[in-house]
Amino acid sequence: MDKKLDSKVIHPVAVIHTEFPEKFGIPRQSGLVSSLRGKILFEPEYRSMDAIRGIEEYSYLWLLWDFSKAKKENISLTVTPPRLGGKVRKGVFAARSPFRPNGIGLSSVKLEEVYLDEKEGPVLIVSGADLMDKTPIYDIKPYLPYTDSHPEAKGSFGEEHKEDSIPVDFPEELLLRLPEDLRESACEVLAQDPRAAYNKKPEYVYGMAFSGYDIRFTVEDQVLHVKDVVHTLDGHCTKVKG
Amino acid sequence: MDKKLDSKVIHPVAVIHTEFPEKFGIPRQSGLVSSLRGKILFEPEYRSMDAIRGIEEYSYLWLLWDFSKAKKENISLTVTPPRLGGKVRKGVFAARSPFRPNGIGLSSVKLEEVYLDEKEGPVLIVSGADLMDKTPIYDIKPYLPYTDSHPEAKGSFGEEHKEDSIPVDFPEELLLRLPEDLRESACEVLAQDPRAAYNKKPEYVYGMAFSGYDIRFTVEDQVLHVKDVVHTLDGHCTKVKG
Repeated sequence: MDKKLDSKVIHPVAVIHTEFPEKFGIPRQSGLVSSLRGKILFEPEYRSMDAIRGIEEYSYLWLLWDFSKAKKENISLTVTPPRLGGKVRKGVFAARSPFRPNGIGLSSVKLEEVYLDEKEGPVLIVSGADLMDKTPIYDIKPYLPYTDSHPEAKGSFGEEHKEDSIPVDFPEELLLRLPEDLRESACEVLAQDPRAAYNKKPEYVYGMAFSGYDIRFTVEDQVLHVKDVVHTLDGHCTKVKG
Repeated sequence: MDKKLDSKVIHPVAVIHTEFPEKFGIPRQSGLVSSLRGKILFEPEYRSMDAIRGIEEYSYLWLLWDFSKAKKENISLTVTPPRLGGKVRKGVFAARSPFRPNGIGLSSVKLEEVYLDEKEGPVLIVSGADLMDKTPIYDIKPYLPYTDSHPEAKGSFGEEHKEDSIPVDFPEELLLRLPEDLRESACEVLAQDPRAAYNKKPEYVYGMAFSGYDIRFTVEDQVLHVKDVVHTLDGHCTKVKG
């Protein structure tokens, strides 16, 4: 029983491009911000329409991916979910924390579009992704509702807090600095309140990197006020939409 | 864009014990045979109740696991799903085939019971598992219906065939050779028709290894007839249920 089981080496099959060059602001689960788009590009050895033949018969996909920015030397057996204020400890296997053994994330995303790019090969455009830009993906599977969907499942604390959102005050002159196709997503992402539950400082100016822009905001009396939108010059400009 | 992404090494966190010492007969997806029980035991470094603290607040779990008996030297970009008669090719990322890059399986199982065994540590009893006995598990995550459940998702061919089953003629004197707590599962597993779609030979006697028994059957005119039940002497006797 105590014989050590074999480890194995896994390789990314694809990479996703999203509007989030940093962790801050990424929705806490997939599907919470449905207007967000992600663009999946395959690694060279899978860059063939054969590898995705028939994928358009499905409306959702599973992504298995790398929690690439959540590395820790020692994985703790317990974690403190942000939705519980960061104060209550739960077992790592009873939470979806990124700080977990093997660091593999699981997200269901909606398949919006499939096309073949002459240079990049097959491209999957998905929505609702909760992944950082350039996240390596280890597997893509079709979502099968007859085996994957359990609407009656008990969801514990996540369920109670899923609708949590705060009003967003985004002055029009600042909103107009964002490209038109990013405005709705930006508002929806901010309404999720990107601040960590244990790090809510009144008057502090938070900065969220979003598709080449830095969106700066404060939260006062449970209202999020956007204070500035700055185009960043660091060259991050992965264009996900259109 | 073509820079090679990093690979990574993953380690099993647990192992599952089920009634299936071999692949033949395992339901094709999780949840299809709900009476099947599986027993999950943790690896030494996770053998603590802390690691699963709060898990009983969920009714379903995700298992990420190793397709340990589906190794191939070269992964094909297309596969032939058994539900399509093994004749139609689909992309490997448009199917749940075990023969896939990185060979990681994904199954939702129902959490039936949690207890602490003095010697084995925390034990999770789950139902509906489609895993072979002794399958290594890389991650266990709580199932969150608000992000994981999409009953409206298009399920393609799997959806059309999910109710496929055949009548089972299991003579009582043979059924009684199985322990009482295995009889219902055995019937349900056989009703799924374990034969490969492309390998349906009339008059051929198939043998399904099931929890220390060899169940022998034929299929004639779309009825499965159990012909013999033999207790195997190879010492396989992992007792999953009580």
